[in-house]
Amino acid sequence: MTLNEAREKLVAIQQRSAALGHAMSVIYYDGVTAAPKGVADNRAQTLGILSQEMYELGTGKETVELLEFLDENKTELNQHEKRQIQLMLKDTRQMQKIPPDQYVAFQRLMVEADDVWHKAKETNDWKLFEPVLEKVFDFHKKIAAWCEPEKKAYDYWLDRYEEGLTMERCEAFFATLREHIVPLLQKVQAKPQLDDSVLHGSFPAAAQEKFSYDLMKLIGLDLDRVGLATTEHPFTTHLGSHLDERITTHYHEDDFSNSMYSVVHEGGHALYDTGSARELAYTVLDCGVSMGIHESQSRFYENIIGRSRAFCEYVFPMAQKYFPELKGRTAEEFYRAVNRAEPGLIRIEADELTYALHIMVRYELEKRIFANELEVRDLPGEWNRLYKEYLGVDVPDDKHGVLQDSHWAGGNIGYFPSYALGSAYGAQYLRKMKETVDVDACVRAGNFKPINDWLRERIWQYGSLMTPTEVFRNAVEEEFDPTVFTTYLEEKFTDLYGL
Amino acid sequence: MTLNEAREKLVAIQQRSAALGHAMSVIYYDGVTAAPKGVADNRAQTLGILSQEMYELGTGKETVELLEFLDENKTELNQHEKRQIQLMLKDTRQMQKIPPDQYVAFQRLMVEADDVWHKAKETNDWKLFEPVLEKVFDFHKKIAAWCEPEKKAYDYWLDRYEEGLTMERCEAFFATLREHIVPLLQKVQAKPQLDDSVLHGSFPAAAQEKFSYDLMKLIGLDLDRVGLATTEHPFTTHLGSHLDERITTHYHEDDFSNSMYSVVHEGGHALYDTGSARELAYTVLDCGVSMGIHESQSRFYENIIGRSRAFCEYVFPMAQKYFPELKGRTAEEFYRAVNRAEPGLIRIEADELTYALHIMVRYELEKRIFANELEVRDLPGEWNRLYKEYLGVDVPDDKHGVLQDSHWAGGNIGYFPSYALGSAYGAQYLRKMKETVDVDACVRAGNFKPINDWLRERIWQYGSLMTPTEVFRNAVEEEFDPTVFTTYLEEKFTDLYGL
Repeated sequence: MTLNEAREKLVAIQQRSAALGHAMSVIYYDGVTAAPKGVADNRAQTLGILSQEMYELGTGKETVELLEFLDENKTELNQHEKRQIQLMLKDTRQMQKIPPDQYVAFQRLMVEADDVWHKAKETNDWKLFEPVLEKVFDFHKKIAAWCEPEKKAYDYWLDRYEEGLTMERCEAFFATLREHIVPLLQKVQAKPQLDDSVLHGSFPAAAQEKFSYDLMKLIGLDLDRVGLATTEHPFTTHLGSHLDERITTHYHEDDFSNSMYSVVHEGGHALYDTGSARELAYTVLDCGVSMGIHESQSRFYENIIGRSRAFCEYVFPMAQKYFPELKGRTAEEFYRAVNRAEPGLIRIEADELTYALHIMVRYELEKRIFANELEVRDLPGEWNRLYKEYLGVDVPDDKHGVLQDSHWAGGNIGYFPSYALGSAYGAQYLRKMKETVDVDACVRAGNFKPINDWLRERIWQYGSLMTPTEVFRNAVEEEFDPTVFTTYLEEKFTDLYGL
Repeated sequence: MTLNEAREKLVAIQQRSAALGHAMSVIYYDGVTAAPKGVADNRAQTLGILSQEMYELGTGKETVELLEFLDENKTELNQHEKRQIQLMLKDTRQMQKIPPDQYVAFQRLMVEADDVWHKAKETNDWKLFEPVLEKVFDFHKKIAAWCEPEKKAYDYWLDRYEEGLTMERCEAFFATLREHIVPLLQKVQAKPQLDDSVLHGSFPAAAQEKFSYDLMKLIGLDLDRVGLATTEHPFTTHLGSHLDERITTHYHEDDFSNSMYSVVHEGGHALYDTGSARELAYTVLDCGVSMGIHESQSRFYENIIGRSRAFCEYVFPMAQKYFPELKGRTAEEFYRAVNRAEPGLIRIEADELTYALHIMVRYELEKRIFANELEVRDLPGEWNRLYKEYLGVDVPDDKHGVLQDSHWAGGNIGYFPSYALGSAYGAQYLRKMKETVDVDACVRAGNFKPINDWLRERIWQYGSLMTPTEVFRNAVEEEFDPTVFTTYLEEKFTDLYGL
């Protein structure tokens, strides 16, 4: 095999992997957006076979020999190829440690878990979900033990979503947040609550859908390449490459801001993915590098941009066009309403200030299950106890408690800390961006181009070409400092609540 | 390889083929129901790779050796296995004759053609579609020449949709139809036209959608396994197996009967597919055997059942629930309206009597293109000339003419005659069914179980286990006789128009 032949094969393998990925993603996407309710068995059959193909593609003799050959000759490769080899070899070596039948069994379990979770949440039936979730956690423990036996299982999974993240780093990060957020929240709670009546009323889903498309256009998404659908739990996915992106939302007819901020959040993910350089398509470098950086984009758009006074001033008149009920209300009322800080039950409805507390509950529970200090069957009780301790709220039922999130059913254990990290990253982007862009003036004028150009230039275009840490440094030209985020919160909520 | 190992491999190959089929079907389905407009390039990339895999699976050395080994030992196989081998070997030997790169190029072309056709139809732009359609026809000629050079190209394609169908059989069949339908239509046209004003008004898509689900339930579809979506052109597809079936429709807000009969037609296809015996899933025997038999189910439900007086009597009160405009109108008015016979421009809107004439136009054009007697660029002119000759109507533009159907863009050339055949088959089913089932009484009571049991017992359960001819004979216990159909038409329209 000549080097050029090997390079061509490297391209072909990545294209085939992207095609299989496309197939699996679209089957999942169809399953949660369009499929009739009773066909999960049929999806599981196909996903089982396709993931076996994916496994064989990743770990087959031909692939391994190719990657090793190219790795030995890496001085002759360009920067893209080097990073491709590095990422693929890492994945291959991990996958080789999972027995093939177990790999397929895991994929099938995840299809089942997702299906059972939907039913369990709908019917508020924890007992239905418990045995499946137990299998899901057990499988995650086994995979961690196979792949990196020298590592603690939870550290293994944290690193899968944010390269380099460990429990040690999480503890330090959460300690800083706690130190600033807990007293800030106490001060806020001592003040009269902000009025959020402007958000409540009757907002037909059809009008909300039209508003969603307007919001997508506003923040710069290309509607020819980014689709919108409705699902139980909003998410973003690319199908095959960053050239076909989908976001989903969920309309609550009594509160238009719920879906509105979902769309802006998922829109942030979609901007990041679709911002990959064209030549990254159908390679392992395509789309975002990690969940932490991904959430830093979505939560930057949702909160730092989306819940700013400037954004509210631009967007509120748009909302008034679709929702006649808003007549006579002001953008300032809207701004205060969407920033009302109040401990609640539901993570995705949480305000910027209390959000990290929801994450800490999940972090704590995942950590203790991986350390065998907590059983899955005891999750609802511990969930409710920690919500009382961290947020001071009583959980009325599991639908509003331990069953609320899709992550565990989707096999995304170890993902949650990325949300909090992403929030904190965003505050540092804002500080850096303001050195060269008048962010408030742009947002107030509905002009997102300078903001998107900055993000594309420093973050989006690279896809997975750099590590998360490198991407972050490239963007802000300094180390991560969570107090930039806590200072941002302190300033914002001091102003809002007149502390 | 022992015989039992070979049998296990036979199962595995079919399952993998079903999984790849699932992936390709869902990508197509997503493309026409949900995908943003600008991502056809991305779909083409993935479908190109997956069809290459499908090609390799079908023609690879391992598969061919397996099939030949099993074929040599077929006396030891059960009936299912024998038919699987027969069908797979036929396909394999054909595919082997198509150069691999051409096979992939064909799949890509069909994705492009479908995309261009949608745009061309939307903008009434024949010139946009013409060069792609030229490539499509050329490719069909090449494939026929590669696969069965001894056969006429059009005969090759007719046989792909209805095993055993030839131009010779078509000519004889169409001659019989012409002989009866042309004078019958003349008599009808000499009479005062039936009033169809009951169908026209304002029928919101949302209400039509609810009505659609009621119709699906009524005719016996399992909504847990059969989904409904909207597309430009209605169709039915299974995803992976008969365990996940999808139908689509298109709502016209000025005429509720249009989508209503689409749903009943596609519902007939879906009943056939989902009626396959459970053990056929994930084998090549799953779902319907041919387009002729498929259309015999869909058109049986659409016309012979759906446009009967009994059906109208049961369904009209259901429609009245959803459409307040229908208050005060009667089922008999509705029955007469949906059977109004009148030459028109659009095949899928044609009545039972003139429908075959639309098919004959398409048959004539396809035949002449394959015989190199007609150029693709001359299609619009010839289309319009034949519509004038056969139906007496002037085609105002290509959107209502040569661009109306999705079939050529979807690579379904040679398919159209199946519609007319299917219509004729259905009349013979009815005659036979009436020997043991009081069809009118069942329909009038909204009880489709005895009808579906008859169809399942004699047709559906077998999937592709028998040839189309065997299936037909098994159902009616006699040979095909198109005059049963023309007699059915003569009786029905004599009554309706008082001839």
